[in-house]
Amino acid sequence: MPLKLTILGSGSAVPVLGRGVTAQFLNINERRFLIDCGEGTQLQLRRFKVKFQRIQAIFISHLHGDHFLGIFGLVSSMSLLGRTKKLQIYGPEGLEEIVRHQFKLAQVYLSFELEFVTLSCKDKTLVFEDASIQIFALPLKHRIECYGFLFIEKQDELKIDKDKIQEYQLSLVEILQAKRGETIQRENETILAEQVTLPLEEPCSYAYCTDTRPIAKLPAWIKGARLLYHEATFTQKHNDRAKATGHSTAADAATIAKEAQVARLLLGHFSTRYKYTDEFKIEAQPIFENVTCVEDGDVFYV
Amino acid sequence: MPLKLTILGSGSAVPVLGRGVTAQFLNINERRFLIDCGEGTQLQLRRFKVKFQRIQAIFISHLHGDHFLGIFGLVSSMSLLGRTKKLQIYGPEGLEEIVRHQFKLAQVYLSFELEFVTLSCKDKTLVFEDASIQIFALPLKHRIECYGFLFIEKQDELKIDKDKIQEYQLSLVEILQAKRGETIQRENETILAEQVTLPLEEPCSYAYCTDTRPIAKLPAWIKGARLLYHEATFTQKHNDRAKATGHSTAADAATIAKEAQVARLLLGHFSTRYKYTDEFKIEAQPIFENVTCVEDGDVFYV
Repeated sequence: MPLKLTILGSGSAVPVLGRGVTAQFLNINERRFLIDCGEGTQLQLRRFKVKFQRIQAIFISHLHGDHFLGIFGLVSSMSLLGRTKKLQIYGPEGLEEIVRHQFKLAQVYLSFELEFVTLSCKDKTLVFEDASIQIFALPLKHRIECYGFLFIEKQDELKIDKDKIQEYQLSLVEILQAKRGETIQRENETILAEQVTLPLEEPCSYAYCTDTRPIAKLPAWIKGARLLYHEATFTQKHNDRAKATGHSTAADAATIAKEAQVARLLLGHFSTRYKYTDEFKIEAQPIFENVTCVEDGDVFYV
Repeated sequence: MPLKLTILGSGSAVPVLGRGVTAQFLNINERRFLIDCGEGTQLQLRRFKVKFQRIQAIFISHLHGDHFLGIFGLVSSMSLLGRTKKLQIYGPEGLEEIVRHQFKLAQVYLSFELEFVTLSCKDKTLVFEDASIQIFALPLKHRIECYGFLFIEKQDELKIDKDKIQEYQLSLVEILQAKRGETIQRENETILAEQVTLPLEEPCSYAYCTDTRPIAKLPAWIKGARLLYHEATFTQKHNDRAKATGHSTAADAATIAKEAQVARLLLGHFSTRYKYTDEFKIEAQPIFENVTCVEDGDVFYV
């Protein structure tokens, strides 16, 4: 299972019972991240049985309260429960200052190191990379500075096609060369890696885009993602509100998903003015078939 | 019903499912206050069906996250739901700065006026008064600056003893004088107000004291309160932890209640290390009989 996504909160600015403010837990290739952290996230993590001490980094999209106010309580609890492992927090300018100031006022001394990475980019930018994944920040368009995130599983080495070992009489050294994608050069023969290896599978990837008005560049940035979460605060009947407040409609999100040719679209961040989420699905599905309106506690696998 | 207290959160620093961080809703003589406002308080207000737009002021004891982090979300929601009435917030130095700074960063413009009253006192101090109640701040002793609060119903005018009207042949003017507590001066006779009025009932009062180590002056400050909420983070077996962290044990709280001769003691702010609250009651009751360990959602009347 390369990717498991747990929806911790799927509502917009005003939380209601049963639909908390925004937060998601992502496990991709055994790397564990929290994406946004609205008020009450630490309780949602408990409710949905996520071991929160294993989170290595938190990604904050923007400084509206429903996306980051849970950080203080979560980080305090991590400390009170004895965490020692460093925690990284990615977010826009201002986040580090406000978090450190608040802990200073409360005279809270954490049991672990808090490392901030301040995001500041005007185009898709690589912000994290290790042996198994890459994470990109995507500058969104909201009322204040805001980022989406694209998580991509890194390709392992190529897989050798076993039939070809016999056919080409490959030595062990040559097999390793091919796995690394290198050309095998023999005295009278050149063998390209793709002649003896299997075609690459599509890498596992997840794009998280909230809060934002629809962005023309976004489909190119997230092309072919296996899973896309895109906000749909409104439906088309409130398109004027969406435009005025820097949000998207279900139709906007579906159009992005279609243009980006993603495999699956998740909709969330619903305004509390809608009693049922059916309206969002009915609007999105004629544009993009594989769409789901998320609920708190939903889990998705890729 | 002069006083109704709703426990919104009864836990200490680390919230768990079923026991949220500190917050209480108090209705005293139809004045409505929120006392402390830990993370998630807006959802607890919804859960326990409190109409939060009617709150006229919030009293924050201190700047530890479990007592004030819910302010940002609650105030934002009040604004998004169209509040126009001014809201007062009483709390220690630093609270106004952090709240205003956070709203500024998020570019949140509230639909109503937020008025801060910064507390700073070394002794019991009157901080609010209107026609029907008085509120005092009580400087507590915790790791950082911290205040308790005493809410007192103001006495109505005195009640006339009807038998005395006949006995003293009181005129209407004289009755009104006596009700106001004034002495009635006749040509050959002086009648004191207490001669013709009924003895005063004990005024309705509520003392809220958390977080604090036991304070020698506290019983004098809250003498005879009808209801006392006092923190009991620990029991005596963790008295060393209580001392080290600036908290009280159940025995400490019961001793305060006894010395203050309050009518009823509520215990809360329990450390999550205790599985059951029975331990607290068993420790407190031999010292002070009328004691209750509170749960989220409990309602108390005076």
